[in-house]
Amino acid sequence: MRPSGRNAEQLRTVIIETGFSRHAEGSCLIKCGDTHVLCTASLEERVPPFLRNSGLGWVTAEYGMLPRATNTRNRREAAAGKQSGRTQEIQRLIGRSLRAGVDRVALGERQITVDCDVIQADGGTRCASITGGWVALRLAVNKLLKAGDIKSDPLTDHVAAVSCGIYGGMPILDLDYAEDSEAGTDANFVLTGSGGLIEVQGSAEGATFSRAQFDHLMDLAETGIAGLVAAQKAAIAG
Amino acid sequence: MRPSGRNAEQLRTVIIETGFSRHAEGSCLIKCGDTHVLCTASLEERVPPFLRNSGLGWVTAEYGMLPRATNTRNRREAAAGKQSGRTQEIQRLIGRSLRAGVDRVALGERQITVDCDVIQADGGTRCASITGGWVALRLAVNKLLKAGDIKSDPLTDHVAAVSCGIYGGMPILDLDYAEDSEAGTDANFVLTGSGGLIEVQGSAEGATFSRAQFDHLMDLAETGIAGLVAAQKAAIAG
Amino acid sequence: MRPSGRNAEQLRTVIIETGFSRHAEGSCLIKCGDTHVLCTASLEERVPPFLRNSGLGWVTAEYGMLPRATNTRNRREAAAGKQSGRTQEIQRLIGRSLRAGVDRVALGERQITVDCDVIQADGGTRCASITGGWVALRLAVNKLLKAGDIKSDPLTDHVAAVSCGIYGGMPILDLDYAEDSEAGTDANFVLTGSGGLIEVQGSAEGATFSRAQFDHLMDLAETGIAGLVAAQKAAIAG
Amino acid sequence: MRPSGRNAEQLRTVIIETGFSRHAEGSCLIKCGDTHVLCTASLEERVPPFLRNSGLGWVTAEYGMLPRATNTRNRREAAAGKQSGRTQEIQRLIGRSLRAGVDRVALGERQITVDCDVIQADGGTRCASITGGWVALRLAVNKLLKAGDIKSDPLTDHVAAVSCGIYGGMPILDLDYAEDSEAGTDANFVLTGSGGLIEVQGSAEGATFSRAQFDHLMDLAETGIAGLVAAQKAAIAG
Amino acid sequence: MRPSGRNAEQLRTVIIETGFSRHAEGSCLIKCGDTHVLCTASLEERVPPFLRNSGLGWVTAEYGMLPRATNTRNRREAAAGKQSGRTQEIQRLIGRSLRAGVDRVALGERQITVDCDVIQADGGTRCASITGGWVALRLAVNKLLKAGDIKSDPLTDHVAAVSCGIYGGMPILDLDYAEDSEAGTDANFVLTGSGGLIEVQGSAEGATFSRAQFDHLMDLAETGIAGLVAAQKAAIAG
Amino acid sequence: MRPSGRNAEQLRTVIIETGFSRHAEGSCLIKCGDTHVLCTASLEERVPPFLRNSGLGWVTAEYGMLPRATNTRNRREAAAGKQSGRTQEIQRLIGRSLRAGVDRVALGERQITVDCDVIQADGGTRCASITGGWVALRLAVNKLLKAGDIKSDPLTDHVAAVSCGIYGGMPILDLDYAEDSEAGTDANFVLTGSGGLIEVQGSAEGATFSRAQFDHLMDLAETGIAGLVAAQKAAIAG
Repeated sequence: MRPSGRNAEQLRTVIIETGFSRHAEGSCLIKCGDTHVLCTASLEERVPPFLRNSGLGWVTAEYGMLPRATNTRNRREAAAGKQSGRTQEIQRLIGRSLRAGVDRVALGERQITVDCDVIQADGGTRCASITGGWVALRLAVNKLLKAGDIKSDPLTDHVAAVSCGIYGGMPILDLDYAEDSEAGTDANFVLTGSGGLIEVQGSAEGATFSRAQFDHLMDLAETGIAGLVAAQKAAIAG
Repeated sequence: MRPSGRNAEQLRTVIIETGFSRHAEGSCLIKCGDTHVLCTASLEERVPPFLRNSGLGWVTAEYGMLPRATNTRNRREAAAGKQSGRTQEIQRLIGRSLRAGVDRVALGERQITVDCDVIQADGGTRCASITGGWVALRLAVNKLLKAGDIKSDPLTDHVAAVSCGIYGGMPILDLDYAEDSEAGTDANFVLTGSGGLIEVQGSAEGATFSRAQFDHLMDLAETGIAGLVAAQKAAIAG
Repeated sequence: MRPSGRNAEQLRTVIIETGFSRHAEGSCLIKCGDTHVLCTASLEERVPPFLRNSGLGWVTAEYGMLPRATNTRNRREAAAGKQSGRTQEIQRLIGRSLRAGVDRVALGERQITVDCDVIQADGGTRCASITGGWVALRLAVNKLLKAGDIKSDPLTDHVAAVSCGIYGGMPILDLDYAEDSEAGTDANFVLTGSGGLIEVQGSAEGATFSRAQFDHLMDLAETGIAGLVAAQKAAIAG
Repeated sequence: MRPSGRNAEQLRTVIIETGFSRHAEGSCLIKCGDTHVLCTASLEERVPPFLRNSGLGWVTAEYGMLPRATNTRNRREAAAGKQSGRTQEIQRLIGRSLRAGVDRVALGERQITVDCDVIQADGGTRCASITGGWVALRLAVNKLLKAGDIKSDPLTDHVAAVSCGIYGGMPILDLDYAEDSEAGTDANFVLTGSGGLIEVQGSAEGATFSRAQFDHLMDLAETGIAGLVAAQKAAIAG
Repeated sequence: MRPSGRNAEQLRTVIIETGFSRHAEGSCLIKCGDTHVLCTASLEERVPPFLRNSGLGWVTAEYGMLPRATNTRNRREAAAGKQSGRTQEIQRLIGRSLRAGVDRVALGERQITVDCDVIQADGGTRCASITGGWVALRLAVNKLLKAGDIKSDPLTDHVAAVSCGIYGGMPILDLDYAEDSEAGTDANFVLTGSGGLIEVQGSAEGATFSRAQFDHLMDLAETGIAGLVAAQKAAIAG
Repeated sequence: MRPSGRNAEQLRTVIIETGFSRHAEGSCLIKCGDTHVLCTASLEERVPPFLRNSGLGWVTAEYGMLPRATNTRNRREAAAGKQSGRTQEIQRLIGRSLRAGVDRVALGERQITVDCDVIQADGGTRCASITGGWVALRLAVNKLLKAGDIKSDPLTDHVAAVSCGIYGGMPILDLDYAEDSEAGTDANFVLTGSGGLIEVQGSAEGATFSRAQFDHLMDLAETGIAGLVAAQKAAIAG
C-alpha cells in the first residue's frame, strides 16, 4: 500500500486555476495534491543576444521555491546570494522541455519567460512546473494569436511531466514527498500530448534498477501524462 | 477624484485567508485590493549567535517579490545574486515593526522568521507585509501557547501598517500603484492596536511637504490602522 | 542630564572644512562633534541609462564607513563582498534627500555622485552625510556655474539633516553615540533651508511613542536645521 | 556514415593512464578519443556536517573544464565568480553515480572527493569523468584497504558511463563533439559492471523520440559499458 | 628635470599626524606630498584559526582607496562586490612587510589589523601605507607595553617603504603620479631602520632595465628610507 | 646540502612538450621537475575596450591550480566563487612579464590570452607558467606569421623566469616545494633572453637580507634563465 492510499497508477488530484496572476500574459496555479506551483508566462519583444536577427524566438524558464514551501524552512536563495545546483538543474529542465513543443520560427523574434514558483511543496515540483508552465505558455501564446501578432500557432503539442518511482519494490505513479523520500528509484518523464518522449530521467537511490523495471515506469508515465494533458485541456477550455 | 474611485479616507478591501500554507506554524494570504502577499511564520528552537544564553527570543523578517508580481517582469533576485537595497530596506522595516509588539523575554530563546512574499503587487506591499505578517506571527505564537511551550503571551498588541500620500494636493489613504506613482508625498505608518507609533516615514517626491500636511496624513493613518486591526481580529477569530 | 552635558536643544559643534579633497569638483570634511565625514561631489558628463536623452540630470550618493571609524573594528565591506542593508538604506536616503533640492532640468544631462565616507563615527553619520554632502554638491555646482556650463542654478534650496530622540523620557536634539544607544525613540529629519520637509523617519526602540512626542521632536529638528544651514552658509561663503 | 567513421556501436579508443598525479590518493588521465579528463580522488578523514557520528562515509565530485579545453576559449569559472548551471548539473551527476557503487557503511566516516578536470574536450566529458572518476576512486580505496584502514571493500561494483544519440536517424554509441552537435536525441547511461542501471537520461533535441528508439539506445549503451569496464579492469590491473 | 621640480634623490615632504582617529589603538594620517593615507591599528585579543594555541601573534593589513581619492572617480569596491587584484596585492604586501619587523612570540596570541585607507592619491600609496602603517602599529604596541599586557617589545625595528623609478633615463626617488605614469621602470623597496631588505620589487614598463640601473635605484631607496625613518621617529616622539 | 640533492646553481630537469592541447593556437606542457603546468595561448581578433581603435594588441594571462595539484586538496576557486589574492597576483605578474617581450604595434589589434593551469605543483609554479606561457605565445604568434596575418614578428625576445632563495644560509637556484618552505628569502626573477630585467621580486621570510645576498641571487638567476631559454629554443625548434 502507498502512504497516500492511491493505486499504483493513480495521479493525485490535479487542479489548474488559470489567470491567477493579474499582470502576466499567461498564468495558472497548478495544484497536484499538496504541491502548488504558480506559473506565469511573461512576453518580451526581444530575444537573447545569441538569437538577434535570427528570426527565431526563445522560451526559457526560471524556478524558485518560497522559503517555507517545505516542512522546514529553507534559506532564501536571494539572501544566500545564489541559486542552488538543484534549482538551476530544474529550471534548465523546464526550459528545455517547453522548448521541445515550440516552433521557434512561428514564434518569431520574441521571448517568453516562464516563472515557476513553488508556493507549497509535497513532491514532484519540477513535473508540476512543466505541466503548469505549459498552460501559462499556452495562454500567453493565445493572446499573441488573438492580437494577430503571430499568424500560425507556434505550439506544436501539449507538454506535460510526471514522476514515477519504485516504492517498496512496486512501481508507482506520481510520488508525493513521503513516497519519494522512501523510493528506491526516482524517475521523471516529459512527454508530448501525442506520446513523443522529450525527457527521460531515472536515478537509482540505493539499489540499481533493471530495464524491465524502467519499462514498467515508462508505462505508468504514459498513463499519467494522459491524465495531465486532459487536465490541461480542461483548464484551457475553461 | 482618486483613480481608484475611493474616498480619501477609504481603505482597499482587505481579505486575510489564514492557514494558506500547510507547513508553516502560522500563515496567511493577505489581499489589500490587488496587492497579495503570502506571509508565513516559521519557528526555530534556536536564536542568532548574539542572543545565545540571553533568555531573549528573536523575530525577524524576509521579503521577496515574485518576478512577475508586477506589470513588467523584474529580474529574480536569486538569479541576480543579491537582494536589492529596496528589498533589504523593506525586510528590515518589517522585522523592526513586528519586534516592537513582542515581549522577547516572554517569547524565550526561540526565533520566529516571518517570510513575506508578494504574489501580486499593486502598491503598498510593505504595509500589507507588516499587517499580514503580524497575523502569521499571531497564529504561530498561538500554537506555542496552546502546546504549553510558552506560558504568557509574548505579543503585547496588534501591529499594522498603512501608506498615505498626497495625490493631486489631496491627502489620501492606502494608495494603490496608480496613485502611488503620481503622489507628491509618500508616507508609511506602523501603529499598534492601541494607537502607539512604531514607525513613521514620510518622503517628498518632487515638492516638499509641510507639518500641517504631515499631520493630516497621520490622521488618515490612524483611521486606516483601525480598519486593518479589525480585519486582523476577524481573521484570527475566523 | 544628557551624557554629553548639552542642553536638550543644543547641536554639537559643527565644523565644515571645504576643499578637503584635491581632486573632487566639490568636497568638505564635516565634523559634528566626534562624527567626521568626508564628502566629495564628482561630476560626470553622462547620466544613467534610464535618463539618456531625457534632458534631466541625476544626483546620487554612496556611503561608506572606514573599518575603524567605530569603537570596535567592523569588517570592511569590500572584503565582505557586499554592502550591508544598513549601508544601502543610508545611501538611498542621502541620494533621495539631495535630489529633493535639485532642479534636474536646470542641471542638464549630467550626473553628480556624492560620496560620504565616515572617517570617525559618534552617532548621526547619515545626517552629517546629508548636511556635508549638500556642501560638496553646492561647491561642484558653483564650479559648473562659474565655467558657464550651466546657466541657471539647479540647487533650489539648502538641504540639511539632524537626528532627534527621546532619552530618559526627554526629547533631545542631535544624539551622539552614547545617547543614541540608550534612546527610546530615534528619528531623523531632512529639511530644506526654508523649512520644507523632505524626509521624516521615526522608529520606536522598545516602547512606542505618541504623536505629541513626535511633534516635540519635530520642533527640535527645526531648531537644529536652522543651525546646520547657518554652518553650511558660513562654509560656502568661507 | 558517422563523421568519425566509426561503426554505430563502436566506442572511441579508451586509454586510462593511472597514477597521473603524484599527490592524489588515486588518479588517472582518461582519454576517450580526443576527450581527455584528469581524475583525482582525495581522501579526508572527516565527513560533511550532516553525516557526523553517523558511521557513514561520503563520496562527492567536482567538475571543471580548462578555459581552452574547447574549440573556442570559455571564460574561466573562477574568474566569472561562479560555476555554471551546466557544471553543477554535471558534478551532481558524477557524485550521485559514483555513490551508487559505494557501500558507505564499509567506507566508514571519511570522505573521498573526486575531481574531474577536462584538459581537452571532444564530446562526452561527463561520461568520461564518471568512468575515469571510478578508476581514481578504486585506486584510493585500494590504498585504504592495503593500509588496513578499512576492512571490507566498500566498492560494490564498477561504475561506468557512456553517451548515445540518434544521428541522421541512426542510433549511435559514444558521440564525439561533431556528432553530438548534430544529434537529434542525446542520452547518457550510467551502469554498473554487472549491468544494473544507475542513471538514465535522454533528451530530445528538436524532434521527440519514441520508446523503440530509446530501447535501441539502451542496447548500445550496454555494449559500450562492457567495453569501458574492460578498460577500467585493465587499467587497475596495469 | 622632474615634473615635481625635486632633485633626483629628494623625498616629498612627509607629515605624520599621530592620533588622527579617536577609536583606534594606534593611528596616524601620513602625508607624502599630495598622497594622504589614514592608517589605523586595531587590536584584538584573538588570532586567526591557524594560529590558535600556537603562542604566536599576527599582524595583518587591509588597504582601500576612497572612490574620489584619484583624479577621476573609481567605482567603490564595496559596491562592485569585490576587492580588485591590485588592492589584494597591495594589502598582502603591507601585511608581509610589517610582519617582517615583528617578533610574533613577544606579541603573544593577539592580532593587530592595520587598515590603510587612501584619502587622496598622488602616487606611492602602497609605500606611504607601509611607512604610516608602521607608525600606527608602533603606537598600538606602545599602548600594550604601557598597560603591561606584553613584557618585551615585539617590534624589532622600523619598517618603511619608498618607490624609485627611471624617469627620462634618470633614476629618481619617491615618484608622484605624474612621474610614475611616465616612468620606464617602477620599483618599490621596503627596508628596516637598520637597512635590512624586506621587499624588493622592480618592474619594467616598456624597456627592460639593467642590473646597474637597479643598483642605482637601490642606492636611492636607502637614502629615502633614512628620511622616512627619521620622520617616523619624530612622529612617535611627538 | 639541498633536500633535492642538486648543486646550488642547478636547475631542475626541464621538459617542454609543445602542442599538448589540440584546440589552442599555441600550447605546451612544461615540467620543471615535479611542477607541471599546461600553458595555452588563445587568439581573439578583438581587444579590450580601452584599446579599441588604438592599433595596439594585448597579451593577458590567467592562472589556476587544479584542486589536487598540491599535497592536500585545495578548495576549487570556481566553487569558492572567487580567485584568491595569490591567484590574482600571479596572473597579473605573468601577463605583465609576457607583455614586456611584445611589440604591441606589430601584434596589431588582437588579443592573446595565455592560460596557465597547474596540473601538479612542487614549487615555482609562477616561474614555470611564465617560461611555458612564453612558448605557447611563441607558437601562437608563429601561426599568425605563417598565415600572413601579421607581417613582422611582435615578439622582441625570449621571456623566462626562475626562483632563487636562501636556504640554510646558502643562495640556491630553482627551489622545489621542500626547499621553498624552509627558505629564509624567496625571490623571483623574470629576464629576457638577452639578459634584460623585466621583474625582480625578493621577500624576506623571517630574517631580512642584505644587498650582497640579493646580488648573489641575481647571479644565480642569470645562470638559470640561460638554461631555461635554451630549453625554450629546443622546444620551439622541436
